Amino acid sequence: MRTYLDCFPCFLNQALRAARIATDDEKKIKRVLDEVGMMLRDIPLDSTPPESGRLIYHKVSEITGDLDPYREIKKESTQKALSFYPYLKSRVEKSSDRLLTAIRIAIAGNVIDFGAYGNFDLSREVDEVLEKDFAVFNYNKFKHGLDKVREILYIGDNAGECVFDKILIEEIKKPVTYVVRDAPIINDATYEDAIQAGIDNVATIVSSGTDAPGAILERCSTEFKKLYLNSNFIISKGQGNYEALSNERRPIFFLLKVKCRVIANNLGVRVGDIILKGNGEE
Amino acid sequence: MRTYLDCFPCFLNQALRAARIATDDEKKIKRVLDEVGMMLRDIPLDSTPPESGRLIYHKVSEITGDLDPYREIKKESTQKALSFYPYLKSRVEKSSDRLLTAIRIAIAGNVIDFGAYGNFDLSREVDEVLEKDFAVFNYNKFKHGLDKVREILYIGDNAGECVFDKILIEEIKKPVTYVVRDAPIINDATYEDAIQAGIDNVATIVSSGTDAPGAILERCSTEFKKLYLNSNFIISKGQGNYEALSNERRPIFFLLKVKCRVIANNLGVRVGDIILKGNGEE
Repeated sequence: MRTYLDCFPCFLNQALRAARIATDDEKKIKRVLDEVGMMLRDIPLDSTPPESGRLIYHKVSEITGDLDPYREIKKESTQKALSFYPYLKSRVEKSSDRLLTAIRIAIAGNVIDFGAYGNFDLSREVDEVLEKDFAVFNYNKFKHGLDKVREILYIGDNAGECVFDKILIEEIKKPVTYVVRDAPIINDATYEDAIQAGIDNVATIVSSGTDAPGAILERCSTEFKKLYLNSNFIISKGQGNYEALSNERRPIFFLLKVKCRVIANNLGVRVGDIILKGNGEE
Repeated sequence: MRTYLDCFPCFLNQALRAARIATDDEKKIKRVLDEVGMMLRDIPLDSTPPESGRLIYHKVSEITGDLDPYREIKKESTQKALSFYPYLKSRVEKSSDRLLTAIRIAIAGNVIDFGAYGNFDLSREVDEVLEKDFAVFNYNKFKHGLDKVREILYIGDNAGECVFDKILIEEIKKPVTYVVRDAPIINDATYEDAIQAGIDNVATIVSSGTDAPGAILERCSTEFKKLYLNSNFIISKGQGNYEALSNERRPIFFLLKVKCRVIANNLGVRVGDIILKGNGEE
C-alpha cells in the first residue's frame, strides 16, 4: 500500500506520542516534532507507510536517547494478554467453529497497537470482535487453503497480540513459523516478546530481518524472503504488514482490525471493521 | 495562550484540510504538507497558535494559488445560519432569561469552525448548547458588568457564526462595535461575511487590522488597539480569539465552545464544554 496524504499528520502524531513515552523533556519532544516535520518532504507518496514509520521512530529514539520507548508497555501488554488466555481458550472450547473463533480472537488481539491508538479497552474489544460481522470474509478460501498445505508462515504484529495469535496457531494444527520484527519498533513484537507470550511452545520463531513496523520485503533478510517465497499459506497480522504486503501476489491472508481512515478507504470498508482477506480477493 | 506540543500535528491536519478544499492536485497538496512540515521548527512554543495558523494558511494559499479556499463554505455557512435566525429568535422570545439564551445561541454558533472541525451538525448543536451546563459560567459578572458600561466591543470569530452573534447583540441593547478579520483566513468572518449576516444593522463593523485567525494584539492595527484599550466590556468569541487574548488583563468575556484537548487542558475543562469566562476568573 502506498502512503496517502492523511498519513503525514498521523506520522507527526505518532512521533509525538512515542516521544512523550520516551521523555518528559518538552524541548526534546519539540525537537522530535521539528525534525520529523522536516522529514516529511522526503517521504514519497509511492513508498509504504511502515518504511517511513521506521525512520520516524528511529528519529524519536535518536533524539530522546531511548531505543525502545515501548519496552515497559510491551511487557504490560503481554502480561495483560496472558491473563486473558484462559478466557480466550474457553471461548474456543465452547464454540461451534473453533477455527473461526480463533481467527476472531487473533483479530481482537490486533487492537493492542500503540502506533494507531493511544489506548484501548482490551476486554471490551475481545467481546466485540467475537460477535462482530466481518467486512471482508474470505473464510472458506482460508479453510480450504489451510487443508491443502503442510505448513504456515504467520507474520506477527504487536507484543501482547502474540498471545492471541497463539490461540489461532493452536487451532491450525500444522507446523507454524512465526515471524517477529528484528529489533524494537513501536510496540511491535520482537523475539523476546514472542517468547514471553509462549509462542515458542507452538511455533518456530524467526525474524523478518528488519525493524520496519511491517514486513517490507526489500528491507527483510534473505532468509526471510526465501521463507516467504516458499510459503503456500501466509497469515499477515495487522495494518503494518497489510501496508507492506497488500500489493504482493503470494497466497497471503490478511487478518486485521481497521484502525484508520486511510486503510479503511484502501480496503473499501469502515474504521473499526474486521477483515479476513485472501490476497487478490474482494 | 502558548502553543502546545499537540498543536503541531493539528497544524499539519489543518493545512491538509485547507489544501484539499483549495485543490484536487495531490502533488500540490503534498507540497503543502512538505512545506508546512518544514515550518514547524520555526514555531516557538511561546507563540500563540493563531500566529502560526496565519502563516500556515498563507502557505496553503501560496502553494495552491487560492487566496480564500473557504469562500464558498463561508457563504453557505452564512446562508444556513440565516435560515436558523427565525428559530433562534423564537427561542429567545420564549425564554425566561433572554440574555442568557442569547449567550447560549452565540456559543452554539461557534461550532461553525472549519479550522477545528471538518464538519458538524448545526441543528443538533443549537439544541444541545441551549440545554447544556456551562463548564465555566461567570454570568453574574457578565450581567452586572454589562449594566455598568455604555458600549461593547465584540470580537467575532467565524462566518455564519455572525448570525448567531447578531442574536446576542440584539439582546445587549447597547452600542456594539463588531470586530472582523482584515482579510480571509480559514472560515473566519471578514467585513463581507458580517454584512451578509446583517451585523451592519445592529453594530458598527470594524477590522482587527490583521488576518490572523485570532486578535493577536501585536498584529492588529493601531486603530483596533486603541479601541481595545478604551473598551470596558469586551466579548471575545471562539478559540482563536481566546488563544490570542487569554493572557490579557482587559475586561474580556470569552464565549466559546471547547473544540480541542489543548484548549480543554488550558481551561481545565473537557472537549465539548461551553464557556462564559470573565478574564481573571476561574
